[in-house]
Amino acid sequence: MIEKYRHPFWIVGGGGMRNNRKKARHEFSRGEKSGLYKAILKRRDVRGQFEPHPIPDSILARILNAAHHAGSVGFMQPWNFILIKDEQVKRQVKAVFEKANTTAAQVYEEPLRSKYLSMKLEGVLEAPLNICVTCDPTRGGPHVLGRHTIPQTDIYSTCCAIQNLWLAARVEGLGVGWVSILSRERLKEILRLPPHVSPVAYLCIGYPERFEPMPELEKVGWLKRLPLGEIVLSETWDEKDEA
Amino acid sequence: MIEKYRHPFWIVGGGGMRNNRKKARHEFSRGEKSGLYKAILKRRDVRGQFEPHPIPDSILARILNAAHHAGSVGFMQPWNFILIKDEQVKRQVKAVFEKANTTAAQVYEEPLRSKYLSMKLEGVLEAPLNICVTCDPTRGGPHVLGRHTIPQTDIYSTCCAIQNLWLAARVEGLGVGWVSILSRERLKEILRLPPHVSPVAYLCIGYPERFEPMPELEKVGWLKRLPLGEIVLSETWDEKDEA
Repeated sequence: MIEKYRHPFWIVGGGGMRNNRKKARHEFSRGEKSGLYKAILKRRDVRGQFEPHPIPDSILARILNAAHHAGSVGFMQPWNFILIKDEQVKRQVKAVFEKANTTAAQVYEEPLRSKYLSMKLEGVLEAPLNICVTCDPTRGGPHVLGRHTIPQTDIYSTCCAIQNLWLAARVEGLGVGWVSILSRERLKEILRLPPHVSPVAYLCIGYPERFEPMPELEKVGWLKRLPLGEIVLSETWDEKDEA
Repeated sequence: MIEKYRHPFWIVGGGGMRNNRKKARHEFSRGEKSGLYKAILKRRDVRGQFEPHPIPDSILARILNAAHHAGSVGFMQPWNFILIKDEQVKRQVKAVFEKANTTAAQVYEEPLRSKYLSMKLEGVLEAPLNICVTCDPTRGGPHVLGRHTIPQTDIYSTCCAIQNLWLAARVEGLGVGWVSILSRERLKEILRLPPHVSPVAYLCIGYPERFEPMPELEKVGWLKRLPLGEIVLSETWDEKDEA
């Protein structure tokens, strides 16, 4: 653990942000930087409070384009974005969630189980748009550059695209909720995915009434945010080489 | 395929960005938005051209904090960041890369092999800082909320954190290169990771002389960027329900 990261001297936008340092050559302006940091800090997993009105096509295209500009191993761009607005498709997905959620609740003892069941964990029907982000491991041919030793990098790239989408949605005032309480096999059937294509994320998107000031699980005391200093290590896991 | 996404009418910052639309309630200002989109579009995988001077601690803390504010399944925050500056550790990692890269080159026939070997694919020694981002699947206890049906969501969360780090680095003028041509097992040994902890990304970070205007693999013609319209689908993979 690196002690100095315990202290939030680096608070974004704080007086010490520039210090006496010369601006680095390719550094963004202060305003541009704050746009990025604000998006990162104010992004939330939005599960409820979706307003019903649809997302304009031009805005949807912008956030999809943002996702598509993530880096990918060997430039393979393994992602697809399935836009789901149809009520029947959504209802099928919602049923898959309900089943998985009932099973998931059983692993908790009371009073945790009641707390779990009291939380709204998805907005499949309320969100005007759902997006399934998939990963096609065959994209880019059999010898994707850089994927020889770690084939899972196709999935990693897809997740980077999802984070871009999430941040772009936030600056547009759109909330995104990632529904992970789903059977992947059932989802593949409903969305008629080819056997080799993985559904990586099922996202619910729309304009929310509000963004919470902190993650819901932090707010309700489910888990605490870890201090940054506890998760930053020096040189090796056991830090034997720490200078 | 959705035909309308073929046309880049949504170009960021273009005249049509606002149209006649009322600003959405939680939408960022135009300047803040452009900071985020610019970071997404100008982020590159930087493998060379690293200048040797170090990254100030306050800036490093900001980009680590950005990574740490990614969403994670059940708020488990499964990531650690191992900061590697020690020349000896770097040299061991570089040797692991060299071995994996020699093997990887063998899968290509000429003239592709020569093209492959002519590209600089990592900056382990040149970058003043390397960061290994790991994922601890035991973080947050045995029953992480939302991870019951898709246990891989711990890795997905870690990749979202990596994308945050990559974007934050970009606005600070820092280049990041993700080295995927490595044996994970050897990397675990060098960094003394516990058996259950996965190294997800090995990143090289520093101030680069320049950021390329487009991804290197696109520039050298290794692969083309896919048109957005080809990867956006409606309702299902086969689009039988398309309205």
